[in-house]
Amino acid sequence: MKQYDFGVVGLGVMGRNLLLNIADHHFAAAGLDLDAEKVKALETEKKDEAVVKGTTSAAEFVEVLKTPRAIMFLVPAGKAVDSAINSLLPFLNEGDILIDGGNSYFTDTDRRVTELAAKGIHFFGMGISGGEKGARLGPSMMPGGDKQAYERLRPVFEAVAAKVNGDPCVAYLGSGSAGNYVKMVHNGIEYAIMQLISEVYDLMKRGFRWSETDIQKTFEEWNNSELSSFLLEITAEILKKKDPDTGTLLVDLISDQARQKGTGKWTSQNAMDLQVPVPVIDSAVMMRDLSAYKNERIEASAMLNGPQEGGADVPAGIQTQLKNAYYFSVITIYAQGFAQLKTASSAYSYGLDLKTVAAIWRGGCIIRSASLETFMRAFSDQPVLPNLMLDRELSGLLNQIHPDSRAVVKLAVDLGVPAPAFMASLAYYDGYRSKDLPTNLIQAQRDYFGAHQYQRTDREGIFHTIWD
Amino acid sequence: MKQYDFGVVGLGVMGRNLLLNIADHHFAAAGLDLDAEKVKALETEKKDEAVVKGTTSAAEFVEVLKTPRAIMFLVPAGKAVDSAINSLLPFLNEGDILIDGGNSYFTDTDRRVTELAAKGIHFFGMGISGGEKGARLGPSMMPGGDKQAYERLRPVFEAVAAKVNGDPCVAYLGSGSAGNYVKMVHNGIEYAIMQLISEVYDLMKRGFRWSETDIQKTFEEWNNSELSSFLLEITAEILKKKDPDTGTLLVDLISDQARQKGTGKWTSQNAMDLQVPVPVIDSAVMMRDLSAYKNERIEASAMLNGPQEGGADVPAGIQTQLKNAYYFSVITIYAQGFAQLKTASSAYSYGLDLKTVAAIWRGGCIIRSASLETFMRAFSDQPVLPNLMLDRELSGLLNQIHPDSRAVVKLAVDLGVPAPAFMASLAYYDGYRSKDLPTNLIQAQRDYFGAHQYQRTDREGIFHTIWD
Repeated sequence: MKQYDFGVVGLGVMGRNLLLNIADHHFAAAGLDLDAEKVKALETEKKDEAVVKGTTSAAEFVEVLKTPRAIMFLVPAGKAVDSAINSLLPFLNEGDILIDGGNSYFTDTDRRVTELAAKGIHFFGMGISGGEKGARLGPSMMPGGDKQAYERLRPVFEAVAAKVNGDPCVAYLGSGSAGNYVKMVHNGIEYAIMQLISEVYDLMKRGFRWSETDIQKTFEEWNNSELSSFLLEITAEILKKKDPDTGTLLVDLISDQARQKGTGKWTSQNAMDLQVPVPVIDSAVMMRDLSAYKNERIEASAMLNGPQEGGADVPAGIQTQLKNAYYFSVITIYAQGFAQLKTASSAYSYGLDLKTVAAIWRGGCIIRSASLETFMRAFSDQPVLPNLMLDRELSGLLNQIHPDSRAVVKLAVDLGVPAPAFMASLAYYDGYRSKDLPTNLIQAQRDYFGAHQYQRTDREGIFHTIWD
Repeated sequence: MKQYDFGVVGLGVMGRNLLLNIADHHFAAAGLDLDAEKVKALETEKKDEAVVKGTTSAAEFVEVLKTPRAIMFLVPAGKAVDSAINSLLPFLNEGDILIDGGNSYFTDTDRRVTELAAKGIHFFGMGISGGEKGARLGPSMMPGGDKQAYERLRPVFEAVAAKVNGDPCVAYLGSGSAGNYVKMVHNGIEYAIMQLISEVYDLMKRGFRWSETDIQKTFEEWNNSELSSFLLEITAEILKKKDPDTGTLLVDLISDQARQKGTGKWTSQNAMDLQVPVPVIDSAVMMRDLSAYKNERIEASAMLNGPQEGGADVPAGIQTQLKNAYYFSVITIYAQGFAQLKTASSAYSYGLDLKTVAAIWRGGCIIRSASLETFMRAFSDQPVLPNLMLDRELSGLLNQIHPDSRAVVKLAVDLGVPAPAFMASLAYYDGYRSKDLPTNLIQAQRDYFGAHQYQRTDREGIFHTIWD
């Protein structure tokens, strides 16, 4: 019987594409899905029986894999992962390696590592980004967990990963759930940049009333500049796409009630647990939530007023201002995400190297952008850099362009266009560069009403005052 | 042996004061604390052995209480509550009532209700707000859980609660953990208003460079107006308080690294789970977190520039603008909190009546303010009002004053003073009144890179497009 090098469980679009990608690199791969239609879809696309096989039987699937087995799961996060693992367990042997390639919550991964280690099975979480196309042609992969088990599979992963200047966009990141955690923060950054792009779009469309062409060309020009990124690239393509039936722009026919699978929310919630400020990610989660309130928004639009029409002049230099304001916010978004990784790495003992994270995000993934080269350089120069905004080159850039961020926020305010991501970036910047924040007053209030005590700036100790 | 009507476990400042308050209303009360010093503090303050007794023995404590017993816990949230319950359990009888008066996380309360019901013991969570002084003289109390058990204790609670126009600031709120949930959101609102006040203070101090007297008088005047609230009142008092040693304002000597006990964070995190936007509460949590990064902020203050000095003119009408902007933000904060309660009530089957919540927040608690009369009226007129901003009176007010909110945000931007709460209020308002948000673009992006599909505005169904 033919023996396969690698197994994939879950033959949805991500699983199927990743399996075909693996086979392209001459690793024979078998796939398992209980849905016969999905197995059929794989069989239809395969080139060669010798390197690709699909099955709906867990027993058969496990039997055709070379031992020690390497099996990757690409199933929805949560209970589906546990069910998939449990369905295979009776057939597995000690030393087999299971890889969760989905967006599992990191504490679930830690639990599974422990449970499976007790059975002699290696388990590790590996975030994969790049969507459908990335999975097929080269994703960014973020593995963490058992380093020795990773080393055994490294040739497969390095072959299938995206390449940037020849370097594969995959690297061992750290122990335990490090891979899932890094992918979660990747997605938080993704949410924030998508929210920011939607605000740029809204400003140009509702605010400045620019033509479809001018809006599309703006994103295209930005993508052809130092701002170049995957999300700008696809935005420029989306804004060209016409609906075949009506001839109008397809995006104009899409519902504005945005969905989410929870990874952005997890990023914000966990940042709060770690006391790391990530306000732009928070704002992105918030706006997806607000988008669901369509009926209330329709009612509110008839009751709540904005600024008077024509109350704001769009300045002549807006093209440059908007571009710089976008750049400014993007830097603060990555700064927040990397700061969260830094704190998480020490809280959860991941041992992350932020330069490596920046390196593998340069290609394949949704948040790939030209700026990641700069971030990689920054963490290379100063491995313990606490925040990207403290890098000399980046702080110099921010110092140059923050006035444009201010101009854009003020213009959005005057136009009545909601710009929470632009605002949160600027508030973060102004808060972060404040040697003294007004939170001393909050400490006084807490001591006043709750006897919560406070610390002083002029002497050691804990103090309480009878204020009235 | 003398039998007492009510027991209090945990004789810290809240427990002691609440016990003395109960005794003032002629209910004999016994207190338990393992710390003999705390028992002594109670004994020192008591007026009469017949109505107040302290002990360090769980057995003695339970023995002196009338049956069925009524015992309230005022101990830190978390494991301390479980330990305190477990220490009493061997001595309790079926039908006894346990009340958790602390800030327990609501799911812990649901668990305890179930566990104790199995033993025939009634358990309910009751949020208490008002700090030290409120506990002593009349707090706002937010009970939820077993209604029949509550009815038995109602005379005690109504006697000790704060009164507004003769109405006690306590009422049965709903089943399960309703009381803890309402208190959690109360605290989220508290965080947001405190953050907002700190931004007003920062604008006046760092931004406008007003004198200490002018800053203090501003808060005092606001508190003597329709904005009147407990938090403005104590802010005005704090800003008068001199440090006896140095003669400078005490608040200027307090560290700006703000602490938190987690209830604001829980509010934001749970709002994200329920998909309710509460951006001003998020911003308040974020700024407390940012305040902890003192060393980084000092470093950043030397590297990151703000606007040029003198680049912003403080307009002549700033007094009125700032006051209206504050009012605007406060309304949006309560709107967010009540919207969260509405969604939570249906998600967790609490059966909350928002008018009742507004009513019991009018007195005793930290977020009491004159505006709560208006909110109570709004929910009385329309019990299913989805958002306070859709009330006719409040929308009229917001329509009148939103230009001042815009002016203040722009001024903060020009001055380089971080104003995330002011900004988040305005973004929420402009987002909420947007019939169409730019989130259609986000849906298109998600479909582009992840084949996540989308809905259309012109026809039913779920769609996917090959975009490139």
